[in-house]
Amino acid sequence: MKTVQVSASKTYAVKIGAGLLPQCGEEIAALGGTKRVCIVSDNTVWPLYGEKVQASLEKAGFLVDSFVFTAGESSKNGSVYLALLSRLAQIPLTRTDTVVALGGGVVGDLAGFTAATYLRGVRFVQLPTTLLAAVDSSVGGKTAIDLPEGKNLAGAFYQPELVLCDCYALQTLPSEIFWAGCAEVIKYAVLFDPALFDYLLETGTDFDLEYVIAKCVQWKQDIVAADEFEKGQRKLLNLGHTFGHGIEACSNFEISHGEAVAAGMAIAARVSASMELCDSAVVERIEEILKRFSLPVSADLSAKALCKAALQDKKRAGDCIHLILPKAIGDCRMVEAQVADLEKLIAAGL
Amino acid sequence: MKTVQVSASKTYAVKIGAGLLPQCGEEIAALGGTKRVCIVSDNTVWPLYGEKVQASLEKAGFLVDSFVFTAGESSKNGSVYLALLSRLAQIPLTRTDTVVALGGGVVGDLAGFTAATYLRGVRFVQLPTTLLAAVDSSVGGKTAIDLPEGKNLAGAFYQPELVLCDCYALQTLPSEIFWAGCAEVIKYAVLFDPALFDYLLETGTDFDLEYVIAKCVQWKQDIVAADEFEKGQRKLLNLGHTFGHGIEACSNFEISHGEAVAAGMAIAARVSASMELCDSAVVERIEEILKRFSLPVSADLSAKALCKAALQDKKRAGDCIHLILPKAIGDCRMVEAQVADLEKLIAAGL
Repeated sequence: MKTVQVSASKTYAVKIGAGLLPQCGEEIAALGGTKRVCIVSDNTVWPLYGEKVQASLEKAGFLVDSFVFTAGESSKNGSVYLALLSRLAQIPLTRTDTVVALGGGVVGDLAGFTAATYLRGVRFVQLPTTLLAAVDSSVGGKTAIDLPEGKNLAGAFYQPELVLCDCYALQTLPSEIFWAGCAEVIKYAVLFDPALFDYLLETGTDFDLEYVIAKCVQWKQDIVAADEFEKGQRKLLNLGHTFGHGIEACSNFEISHGEAVAAGMAIAARVSASMELCDSAVVERIEEILKRFSLPVSADLSAKALCKAALQDKKRAGDCIHLILPKAIGDCRMVEAQVADLEKLIAAGL
Repeated sequence: MKTVQVSASKTYAVKIGAGLLPQCGEEIAALGGTKRVCIVSDNTVWPLYGEKVQASLEKAGFLVDSFVFTAGESSKNGSVYLALLSRLAQIPLTRTDTVVALGGGVVGDLAGFTAATYLRGVRFVQLPTTLLAAVDSSVGGKTAIDLPEGKNLAGAFYQPELVLCDCYALQTLPSEIFWAGCAEVIKYAVLFDPALFDYLLETGTDFDLEYVIAKCVQWKQDIVAADEFEKGQRKLLNLGHTFGHGIEACSNFEISHGEAVAAGMAIAARVSASMELCDSAVVERIEEILKRFSLPVSADLSAKALCKAALQDKKRAGDCIHLILPKAIGDCRMVEAQVADLEKLIAAGL
């Protein structure tokens, strides 16, 4: 097992290892102070791990309730959020109790936002069951729901008390969910870590899970510790995401987050080359690693449609939008673009 | 004009004086950095002041949108919250833009919670138009919506950038709204300020608005600066509110917040006397000042019903509930009661 300590407005441990789910009761009990927990999960994950997690929590002495919703990004919406709030109030969960998110990014984002706002904030533990959630969404405190107008448009910065990442659970993922998570892993390599990039290019999807997740979480911790509220360098983590969120939105969320981020990274690389921020070798290497992981390097969209969707994304500030563009593997830059120029830039990257 | 500086996670000014609404454009422009604002108001306040505020903002160079909802506590709910989020996304308001709350506590709570969560937080300015909002809800960063299960059950701690309290607007309030706000003013006197208590007992509702509001806001600032997230002494500000929220809920919100808090304070005083924390003279003085302001000193409810509603309130922590009880005028204490004992305690205070 590996442990990464995250130091943000709250300090907490991210534990990564095989077989952590059936031990979650003891781990959460060790935090102290809570009598009651509500497990939030979806109807894909709950049948796989729900019983095990509930049994472990009950064995550790907790009163356990649960809230299980229909799996998928389309559940990360206002009405499921309000239903979960009402469920917590009906239990009732009190100020010292804990919300436990068991699932992927959608579960973590929705449960986290609810924990952040129920009674103006109750305790929150993440049990990520997808690679994407393990390396990205479960760490760092970004929580959100989607609005009809766009993805993640309402949310809060709210840190968990603990993240338990069970590598055994991740190994049982359907392959397309695993691949989608690989896009986020590759993102860390492109942003910060040429050695990790080379390692991943060599192993493809056969990488050592514990090693790679710990590497990614450590990079994320370094960024979050320096800039929890995304005033500056945390924006780097949006590499591939401004275009990626646009691609997801245009596909009506039929393209997965991971695939959209992969295509978004490739587009960002080509935009970067068109601005002469990087040379074509960087673009080729990024396309190469994405293909090595069976991830897409393009999206079947017009520049106009993607530009419109990207501007709906929340990264816009007044007439400017920040783009994260690779200069080299392990060195990305934040570039401020005028909203008026964005469509032309995107056209050069498609 | 009087100014109180509030020092919390954000530092901001509360300005109190006659005629501030028509100057709000300049005041908000002086904060810098915003191009677009969305005024949030209700259909009681908007016809009175909306045009003036909008004209002042436009004169100062802002692009101005507005969102006006049906006045009343029943609008402080999840669906109006989601509708406001969508409205902001449709405009679209960006990260550097500002939400302006024009109205009483319901407007401020709803607009504040929306500003706290839209894009994980955009700028927020309060223009309170009721006495209650001026002395209480507009300062200190508590924002919330109600759930079907109870009042203020979802929300965030989120400080505004500026509070402009126009005493002229407050003077044009219907008298029952003014009286309701007086309950909060009396609360500060009972909690912290025997001199203010004596002054109010003498003046009745003819008190000097600018002087009294500045006094109350200063007391609130002192508490918020010491305990922004209500881990300890900020709980004192809940004097009258645990019972008050229960009274409101039992009446289906037909009894106003201020009247409910008044009755809640009187009940708290009688509970305190029954526990021998204070003597009967304290109870008499609190009842006297409430009557001086034509506020109720009791509620027509059974101990059982009020107990049940009070336990639904979010102040509960596990098996305990914190009650704020007066020991003397200007000296209140936090008393931890067992949930199992609460009904008996309430029965002694009705």
